[in-house]
Amino acid sequence: MKVLVLNSGSSSLKFQLFSMPEALVLCSGLIERIGFEDAKFTFKSKNNSIEIVTAIPNHKIGLELVSEQLLNSKNNLIKSSDAIDIVGHRVVHGGNYFSKTTEVTKEVKEKIEALSSLAPLHNSANLEGIEVAEAIFTKAKQVAVFDTAFHQSIPEYAYNYAIPVDLTNKHHIRLYGFHGTSHKFVSEKAIEFLSLKSSKLISIHLGNGCSMTAIKNGKSMDHSLGFSPNNGLIMGTRSGDIDSSIIFYLVDKLGYSLNDISNILQKKSGMLGLTGFSDLRDIQKEAEKGNKACQLALQMNAYRIKKYIGSYTAVLNGLDAIIFTAGIGENSSLMRQMVCNDLNYLGIELDEEKNQEKSENIKVVNTEKSKVKILVIPTNEELEIAKQSVKLFEY
Amino acid sequence: MKVLVLNSGSSSLKFQLFSMPEALVLCSGLIERIGFEDAKFTFKSKNNSIEIVTAIPNHKIGLELVSEQLLNSKNNLIKSSDAIDIVGHRVVHGGNYFSKTTEVTKEVKEKIEALSSLAPLHNSANLEGIEVAEAIFTKAKQVAVFDTAFHQSIPEYAYNYAIPVDLTNKHHIRLYGFHGTSHKFVSEKAIEFLSLKSSKLISIHLGNGCSMTAIKNGKSMDHSLGFSPNNGLIMGTRSGDIDSSIIFYLVDKLGYSLNDISNILQKKSGMLGLTGFSDLRDIQKEAEKGNKACQLALQMNAYRIKKYIGSYTAVLNGLDAIIFTAGIGENSSLMRQMVCNDLNYLGIELDEEKNQEKSENIKVVNTEKSKVKILVIPTNEELEIAKQSVKLFEY
Repeated sequence: MKVLVLNSGSSSLKFQLFSMPEALVLCSGLIERIGFEDAKFTFKSKNNSIEIVTAIPNHKIGLELVSEQLLNSKNNLIKSSDAIDIVGHRVVHGGNYFSKTTEVTKEVKEKIEALSSLAPLHNSANLEGIEVAEAIFTKAKQVAVFDTAFHQSIPEYAYNYAIPVDLTNKHHIRLYGFHGTSHKFVSEKAIEFLSLKSSKLISIHLGNGCSMTAIKNGKSMDHSLGFSPNNGLIMGTRSGDIDSSIIFYLVDKLGYSLNDISNILQKKSGMLGLTGFSDLRDIQKEAEKGNKACQLALQMNAYRIKKYIGSYTAVLNGLDAIIFTAGIGENSSLMRQMVCNDLNYLGIELDEEKNQEKSENIKVVNTEKSKVKILVIPTNEELEIAKQSVKLFEY
Repeated sequence: MKVLVLNSGSSSLKFQLFSMPEALVLCSGLIERIGFEDAKFTFKSKNNSIEIVTAIPNHKIGLELVSEQLLNSKNNLIKSSDAIDIVGHRVVHGGNYFSKTTEVTKEVKEKIEALSSLAPLHNSANLEGIEVAEAIFTKAKQVAVFDTAFHQSIPEYAYNYAIPVDLTNKHHIRLYGFHGTSHKFVSEKAIEFLSLKSSKLISIHLGNGCSMTAIKNGKSMDHSLGFSPNNGLIMGTRSGDIDSSIIFYLVDKLGYSLNDISNILQKKSGMLGLTGFSDLRDIQKEAEKGNKACQLALQMNAYRIKKYIGSYTAVLNGLDAIIFTAGIGENSSLMRQMVCNDLNYLGIELDEEKNQEKSENIKVVNTEKSKVKILVIPTNEELEIAKQSVKLFEY
């Protein structure tokens, strides 16, 4: 069975074609800068690799390019667009409506649209991806996999904010959580890998966006991103947790506009705001060379993660394993080392040598006597979307 | 030696007269609703107790009333205003200038004034109290004891926010922390009581305002109030931690004004916003009667504290004792029980019977086998101010 996975951003489109259930990647690629004259289309299959810079005015034309390559006999993938059985779409915000993966219907699309006010950049792009895919892959089942769905198990005392109850109820202001597909994927891997019957896990997703989840017996119990994807950990350009009074101070006393501040907190803060660099690899290199701002930013980043580990250990009243995943989590042994340092009271002891080893697979990096397992697990959101899409129809 | 301690709010003035070093309270009292026709003056000494409702147009007239009672021969306190040796003033915001208790000079007053933009309601009132006291008690030494001073030991990686570094530097945006006098007082009591040489403590101040401090060897290492006194725990009317994006959402999508939101988050949120009640005793009673909103609010409140306990245990990489203090911390056995429940992984085990016992003194409420001591310690900010004021001159 052929499953095409689409992840539409406001100006991008990532795709992967899987043969399921064997989880074989037939091709994958990315379109960047949709809407610009110099958009970039990247495509990779077993015997072909393409990179084109061209004008791609919208998602429809982008997806037509993808479809063209899928049908191109040179790539030996599919003979007609009808050969795609399922298109699995990443949808960022499922609000309170969607606690699991869902087949796309008219009502589902209306709800995704309605949730746009909560995720303006993302949900509209996701919806556009769905509509374009419906027009091209007319025989395929369209499936929506929500970033928020995994977190719908978070209990009310954890997802509520301490604001007036009518604001909460009328305007659906609560913690939704994001990166759910990744947290679900790596936590299930961990449970399987460690053969755990009951489990208390903390998953740490450190990529462009960063988040942590407290997971009990496979269910999300708390999460560091909240109402929006700018809460909790320090990210590439996002501040994560701040005292919200800072916003009032910047407006009232210093004359900033609210738009400026929103822009600053989302695009000019985090590691970029602290150091001038947004790529952690650059920051690590600079820190090694003695750049004080970079050293401090790394410390702050690790310290914030450490605090969430403590917090979630209290929430779970115990801890079987912590999981590092995504770009930074999988690749920065320094960040893992800084995070795990001085946490032995919680039962966490990193093996510095194992931590340095490279591996494409699941890696165990704790010492023998560490009570808590420390795992590095490569995430694969696309595969998770494909799996969940297939599972929905119980083929 | 006679030390008068003054705590001026925007429309209130609390006072206590101590005989030091024996820490004997000679009289105490409170003026409320300064600036109104029906201001209330309460005064209590060994052989006199007064309650007057009258117009008190400003702090000066308020403090003159206090002085009148101090001099009133009926109370047998002092014979002339020159008999006051020191006036110790609570000053809320000491910014980065003051890391310890300081004698008031012209420069000190200028700095307190300059810090008003960071604590508009508090610092101006504190300064007014100082100036009025200087005019009345001309022979006394005036001393400023800062709420923020205790937290000046918090390391940079913990007090910094992940916002652009020039915002931090130019506008002094950082975690300052508050309630420092209380956290210092109870943590020193705990260290003495437990005869600890090195110590890792978490102090939990639960009053009208609520905050927690991670304290290592007597030094504040992290704290839940931040740039402002509305961060961290859920308070009577303050929200504590929220995802700051909620503010942008309320303005951009729902048309709230920034002023409204500031007002909501400070005065209509917290336990009041969640339940309609701001007094925890009422909320507990309602919860017992089955009021779901009150039950949920108590759960949320305890859950938030629990998360900070975990977080600070990670920060300290260990824990000798947690300390409950202030109105709620000292008196609500229910809140203590809800907080300490299911924290045995961290070594915290409450003794439910001991937790119910009433005492005016330090109370130990953990089980025998609890690795972490759980203490209830009555706070006394006024006495701490008196002590620090005296210590400054090394009498």
